[in-house]
Amino acid sequence: MLPQEVLQQAQQQLLDYQGSGMSILESSHRGKAYEAVHQEAQANLRELMAIPEDYAVLFLQGGATLQFAMVPMNLLGKNQVADYTHSGAWAAKAIDEAKRIGSVHLAADTSAVRPARVPLPAELALTPGAAYLHITSNETIAGTQWKTFPNTQEPLVADMSSDILSRPIDVKAFGLIYAGAQKNLGPAGVTVVIIRKDLAQRVGDSIAMFLRYATHIKENSLYNTPACFAVYLLMLFTRWLIKQGGVSAISKRNQEKASRLYAAIDGSSFYRGIAHTDHRSQMNVTFRLPTEELEAEFVREASACGLKGLQGHRSAGGIRASLYNAMPIEGVDALIEWMKDFEQRQGKVRFAGKSQEVA
Amino acid sequence: MLPQEVLQQAQQQLLDYQGSGMSILESSHRGKAYEAVHQEAQANLRELMAIPEDYAVLFLQGGATLQFAMVPMNLLGKNQVADYTHSGAWAAKAIDEAKRIGSVHLAADTSAVRPARVPLPAELALTPGAAYLHITSNETIAGTQWKTFPNTQEPLVADMSSDILSRPIDVKAFGLIYAGAQKNLGPAGVTVVIIRKDLAQRVGDSIAMFLRYATHIKENSLYNTPACFAVYLLMLFTRWLIKQGGVSAISKRNQEKASRLYAAIDGSSFYRGIAHTDHRSQMNVTFRLPTEELEAEFVREASACGLKGLQGHRSAGGIRASLYNAMPIEGVDALIEWMKDFEQRQGKVRFAGKSQEVA
Repeated sequence: MLPQEVLQQAQQQLLDYQGSGMSILESSHRGKAYEAVHQEAQANLRELMAIPEDYAVLFLQGGATLQFAMVPMNLLGKNQVADYTHSGAWAAKAIDEAKRIGSVHLAADTSAVRPARVPLPAELALTPGAAYLHITSNETIAGTQWKTFPNTQEPLVADMSSDILSRPIDVKAFGLIYAGAQKNLGPAGVTVVIIRKDLAQRVGDSIAMFLRYATHIKENSLYNTPACFAVYLLMLFTRWLIKQGGVSAISKRNQEKASRLYAAIDGSSFYRGIAHTDHRSQMNVTFRLPTEELEAEFVREASACGLKGLQGHRSAGGIRASLYNAMPIEGVDALIEWMKDFEQRQGKVRFAGKSQEVA
Repeated sequence: MLPQEVLQQAQQQLLDYQGSGMSILESSHRGKAYEAVHQEAQANLRELMAIPEDYAVLFLQGGATLQFAMVPMNLLGKNQVADYTHSGAWAAKAIDEAKRIGSVHLAADTSAVRPARVPLPAELALTPGAAYLHITSNETIAGTQWKTFPNTQEPLVADMSSDILSRPIDVKAFGLIYAGAQKNLGPAGVTVVIIRKDLAQRVGDSIAMFLRYATHIKENSLYNTPACFAVYLLMLFTRWLIKQGGVSAISKRNQEKASRLYAAIDGSSFYRGIAHTDHRSQMNVTFRLPTEELEAEFVREASACGLKGLQGHRSAGGIRASLYNAMPIEGVDALIEWMKDFEQRQGKVRFAGKSQEVA
C-alpha cells in the first residue's frame, strides 16, 4: 500500500519529470535527474532513522530473498559460525540459505511455541566469536514482533522487511539491517540495506561483484543500473513520511492502529488473537474465529465490502490484517466496525473461555 | 526510452488499475491483477520471439550484472570449461565474473582490434565438451554487433541486453538468452532470461535458491516478490511492439534508422564511423569528429537543442547515438539534420582521406 498522495505525485510526473521532458522511467541512472532522486532517497532514510556516518545506505535488488544469501556470503567466514534465531516462516528461509553457505547455530527456536512468539533476548544461546546474530524483527505470518532487541558483542543482523520505519530503532545497535521495500518503504523492486561499512570488508574474492556489499558501497549503489523507478517511489514515500512527522509520529499512529484492533479482538469472545500478547506485531494482526467456515465467510464478505487481503497465510490459517505505514487509521476503524457487524450477524458460535490464549 | 503511448497508459492506470480501485504498484504479486500482467508479459515475449515450449521465460532482478554470475553458477560444472568471446567492455564484465566461479577459455578476443569488431563464427577456438559458449550480441560502447551467430555443439549463451527484440533471432539456436530490460524491453529493474529448461538442472546444492534458474522456473518467477511495476511496463511495451507488427516490423524500422545515420556519416569527411563496417551495430552508432574539441562542442550544442545522451562512453570517447526500439525514425532524421547543420557551421577541419577506417 502506498499513500494516495505519493501515487498522485508519481502519476503527475510520469510523462515529464520536473520539466525535463522525460519520464523518470526513461532517465539514465548516470543522469542528473536520477542522481538527485537517489541522493534524496538516501538522505531521507538517514534523517528518518538517524543513520550514523559509518553506515552505508544501499539500494539493491532481489528482495529479502537475495539478502538471505548475501548476508552469509559477505559476513560469514569459512571457519566461523553464524547465530540465527528461528521465530517463524521468514526466519526459516534466512536459516536455510545460510546453511548452504556456512556453519549455522540456532541460538533460539520459538517456531513451534504456541501461542506464537519470538525469542526473548535473555534466552539466546550465543556462540562466542560468532560472525553475527541474525533475527527477523517481525514475522508476518504468525503476527509476532521483537519488542526488545538483543544487546550482543557479535554484530546484530536484522531482516526488517515488514516493520522498517514503523517504529524508532537505534541503528547503532545493528551491524546490518535489510528490508525489501514493498511492505513499509514503497514498491516492490528495491531492497534497502543499511550496513556498518567495516563489515563489508570481510567478503572473499570468489564472490560475484554484484553480490558484494563492498561493491555497492564503493559505487554508491550505482555499480549497475538500479531499479530507478522503485527508488524514485521510495524517495517520494520517505519524503511523505518526513512530512507526517517522521518515525516517532508514524510509530504513534501504528501503535494506535494496532491497539484499537487488538482491543476489539480481546473485547470479544468471537475473535481470538493468535500471537502471545507480549509479542504481538503492530504490523500484522492475526486472529481466529470459532470455526474455519466462519473464517472463510469472514474473508469472503469482507472482500466483497472492499476490505481485501484479510486471509491468513495458507500455512497458518485464520485472519491477518496488515497495518503497514501507509494504512490510515480510518482503515482500521472501518475494519473494526465491520468485524462488529459480522459478529452481530454470525456470532452464534463463540470461543469457550477467555478470548486470548496465553502461554 | 519508452514509447509515449506506453507511458500514457501507465500514467492513466497508475491510481486505479482496470477499475480495481488499487494501483498496480500496490497489487500483491500473488493477486489476480498482477498474475494477469505477469502471464501476458510472458505470452507477449513468447509470441514476439517464437520461444519454443521447452524454454522458460523468467523475470528476474539484478540486470545483466547478476546474470554474469548466475550463468556460470548454474551452468558451469566443477571440472568443466566455459568458452567466452571477448568483444569489448560488456563481454569483459561477463568474463571477469565467470573467472571467479570456474574455468574460462577465451574462444576469441577482438577487444583490441581496430576498427572495432566482434569475432567471426569461423575464428572461434572452441573447447571440446565446453559447458557453454558465451557471447555479447551487441557491444554498446564500441557500437559493434554480431550479424551471424555461431552454430555450436555446446549451448550458446548470449547477453542480449542491448539488442533483444530489435531483430529476428532463432531462439532454438541458443541455450540461454538474458537481457536487462532497460534498453529494448522497458524500464530498469527487471531482467529477462530465456532458458532451455534442461540446462537449469545442472545447478549444485550450494547455490542460493534465488540464484538458481531452477527455482524461478519451478515457481514461474514468483518465488519471491518480482519487480511488479517493471514487469507491468514490459507487458505494456511488448503489447505495443506486437501492435507495431512485431519483431520483423521493428527490425525493418531499426535497419532503416541505422542505415540513414550510417549513410550520413559515410557521406561526409567530417564524421567518421568507429566500428568496422561489417560489424556495425544497429542499436549504437558510434562515430568521431576530427578533433576532441569539436566532439565536445557537438555534444554540448546537441544537448542544448534537445538531442541528449550523445556523448560516447568515457572509455571510448567520440559520439554515440543509441537507436533502441522505442526511438522513432523521426528522431534519427532530426539528428541527421542537426549533424548537417553542425557540419556546415563547424566543418572547417576535416578528416584526411576516406570517411571510414577499414581493417
